Amino acid sequence: MHKIPNIAVIRLALYAKHLEMLHNDGVELVSSVKLAKMCGANPAQIRKDLAYFGQFGVRGVGYYVNDLLNALKEVMGTNRTWRLGLFGVGNLGKALLGFEQFAQRGFIFTAAFDKDIDLVGTEVQGMEISQSEDIKEVIKGPGCFDIAVLATGADRAQDCAMRIVEAGIHAILNFTPVRLVVPENVFVENVDFTVRLHALCYSLTTGSDVTQRHPR
Amino acid sequence: MHKIPNIAVIRLALYAKHLEMLHNDGVELVSSVKLAKMCGANPAQIRKDLAYFGQFGVRGVGYYVNDLLNALKEVMGTNRTWRLGLFGVGNLGKALLGFEQFAQRGFIFTAAFDKDIDLVGTEVQGMEISQSEDIKEVIKGPGCFDIAVLATGADRAQDCAMRIVEAGIHAILNFTPVRLVVPENVFVENVDFTVRLHALCYSLTTGSDVTQRHPR
Repeated sequence: MHKIPNIAVIRLALYAKHLEMLHNDGVELVSSVKLAKMCGANPAQIRKDLAYFGQFGVRGVGYYVNDLLNALKEVMGTNRTWRLGLFGVGNLGKALLGFEQFAQRGFIFTAAFDKDIDLVGTEVQGMEISQSEDIKEVIKGPGCFDIAVLATGADRAQDCAMRIVEAGIHAILNFTPVRLVVPENVFVENVDFTVRLHALCYSLTTGSDVTQRHPR
Repeated sequence: MHKIPNIAVIRLALYAKHLEMLHNDGVELVSSVKLAKMCGANPAQIRKDLAYFGQFGVRGVGYYVNDLLNALKEVMGTNRTWRLGLFGVGNLGKALLGFEQFAQRGFIFTAAFDKDIDLVGTEVQGMEISQSEDIKEVIKGPGCFDIAVLATGADRAQDCAMRIVEAGIHAILNFTPVRLVVPENVFVENVDFTVRLHALCYSLTTGSDVTQRHPR
């Protein structure tokens, strides 16, 4: 398989999300033009992105929604369950534990950690909270996870990341503003809500709608 | 100005974010290759995206960080302050009110609404909570805002969106999983954390790092 850029993977995830909506709505076929409109992309870009992985379209017909969705999930590795470990059970952490979309898409929290000793040992959203110092013990049991979700305060982020890495976890979804320093073989994805605001600012400023608008 | 696709605006916001980091680090010049690496994009894509707006690069030299940053901010409309109104002061809402990155990038919460009458009238992160029924009154005063941030429960999202639209607000950052139905002239940007997880799933599955990795 070719190496594809990050932004193409984010686009594939977006296409998969909209294909899933179409599938749930009982739609069997979609044109690249319609899929592009749903995703706020352009049809040529979609055809180019999908060409990384093979031929999914039928000329003059469009894409078979379910086939393309399954192919994308296989390519992206999302045709399986991924286990998440939460670090930082503050307001954001609690919100993340309660997000139904995670479970619906196969992302299951199996462990949660916090520094607050009043929280440790209690349950939040049915999840028992552990100390991050105990991570190596926790992941030996049912608390084992694939991806760390970092939602601590900024002051704790780098320390926590080092503990995660030392425990042998190779992927971090980073909600903190800290630029984490981790070894080359550890994957870090930074979440920044302000980036999503920019499409709105641009649309309001220019009057040109560049948001990902769902079709009505 | 040409109409540019949503995904290009998201990329511009990403470039601006990394240019801001370089600027804060005192870096004056950056090559498209280095900027691309920081953003997880490719240099040809960056040159193409920036070509929508004019000539910012100097052949053989690179980009002047501050000039490019200011030009991007002007293009995107982020060279000013934007006021945000929060709907739903639950765990996620509280976390959003406390995010320092918003204020640092010029996004200021000026109003917050919740349905919980025990919360209404109290202060959260220094912000007095109002009822969403009172939105038209609130925006006549210092609670006036440009962009609604929707962080209610899914069951309240559409009702709340209609109230926002009726009050004359034209932009919604939607953290709920609900596909909002709004008039054509209202901009909606949907935030979905699971999409960010997919770059990690892909990297873990293929061993090929497609995350937005910061340079070390």
